[in-house]
Amino acid sequence: MALNTRDRIIETGAEIIHRKGFNHTGIQEILTAAGVPKGSFYNYFTSKNDFGLQVIDYFSAHFTQIAKDTLEDSSISPLNRIYEFLTAFMDYFESQNYAGGCPIGNLAQEMGDLDPAFRKKLNESVDMMIDAYVRLLTAAQKDGKILKNIDIKDTASFIVAGWHGAIIQMKLTQSLQPLRNHRNIIFDHILKK
Amino acid sequence: MALNTRDRIIETGAEIIHRKGFNHTGIQEILTAAGVPKGSFYNYFTSKNDFGLQVIDYFSAHFTQIAKDTLEDSSISPLNRIYEFLTAFMDYFESQNYAGGCPIGNLAQEMGDLDPAFRKKLNESVDMMIDAYVRLLTAAQKDGKILKNIDIKDTASFIVAGWHGAIIQMKLTQSLQPLRNHRNIIFDHILKK
Repeated sequence: MALNTRDRIIETGAEIIHRKGFNHTGIQEILTAAGVPKGSFYNYFTSKNDFGLQVIDYFSAHFTQIAKDTLEDSSISPLNRIYEFLTAFMDYFESQNYAGGCPIGNLAQEMGDLDPAFRKKLNESVDMMIDAYVRLLTAAQKDGKILKNIDIKDTASFIVAGWHGAIIQMKLTQSLQPLRNHRNIIFDHILKK
Repeated sequence: MALNTRDRIIETGAEIIHRKGFNHTGIQEILTAAGVPKGSFYNYFTSKNDFGLQVIDYFSAHFTQIAKDTLEDSSISPLNRIYEFLTAFMDYFESQNYAGGCPIGNLAQEMGDLDPAFRKKLNESVDMMIDAYVRLLTAAQKDGKILKNIDIKDTASFIVAGWHGAIIQMKLTQSLQPLRNHRNIIFDHILKK
């Protein structure tokens, strides 16, 4: 099924913004890549910022779908789901030659302190990631698989923050080693009894 | 002492790039802010990229000076120096109203996978940060203050990555809580015997 014009602009824009950042991406560049005449942009979006906020929704929905498939697979244990989730993203980043990284992490770095509307929406997206870990860590703690005295919310935030930081190092070293290191230290020192 | 023209362009540019990112900052904007006529830019820099690389050197030198003061203070233990170092940056970020963050982490996120020359220089800068932790963790391990079986290099990379990720969350939450959380979990779960 052909995408409608709005969705085509969003998907094309998301791909370019993921690669180059929001401020460095021009509306005309997106419309040219999407094969859409310039005039139609303002039929769908009131401004570039409005468009950017809708791109964040697109990224969040995309992440939620991927997360759902792995994190809600009840055939494996909660801790193994976290391990598989991180490993699946490592495979994805390798397939992208370590480029791009996490679009939400990128935009949070770029826009988090520049625009309150972006900040709010990006914060909600990161909270969704943290909540996904909270659910799994709660289940693991209930099953007695991790220490009873670990604060679940703080640990979940720590895992997400460390992952975003490891992605920065991945870009610089052009290797998965920082992500592997993050996963291994989390499992060896935090998520253990 | 008045700065010479080159240094004035670098310092002004560094401040604007720290706030807005590299690609979003124009040469003209920097020169106007620095009160320097446009023609003189190319007396000092061959291109915007050449300028950007020299700004990274400036940030690295600045970080090295700050790090030196805290991390080489032999009047306190190596582990306490790490604790004080992280805490000093928290105070700094609070004074900046959680804006800006780490200029090297920002540029690594923005430019790490876009430009090989930036990548190389930013990677060297992050390696300097990691090496600073390696020296302190080595001393702490030798003194028997942290586990003998911790891999020092991996742990140092993990601390730097988690810190950069926590800065992203700081921008989104407009609070020091993510940095405090990073410091506390590092000390409670990794840097302990």
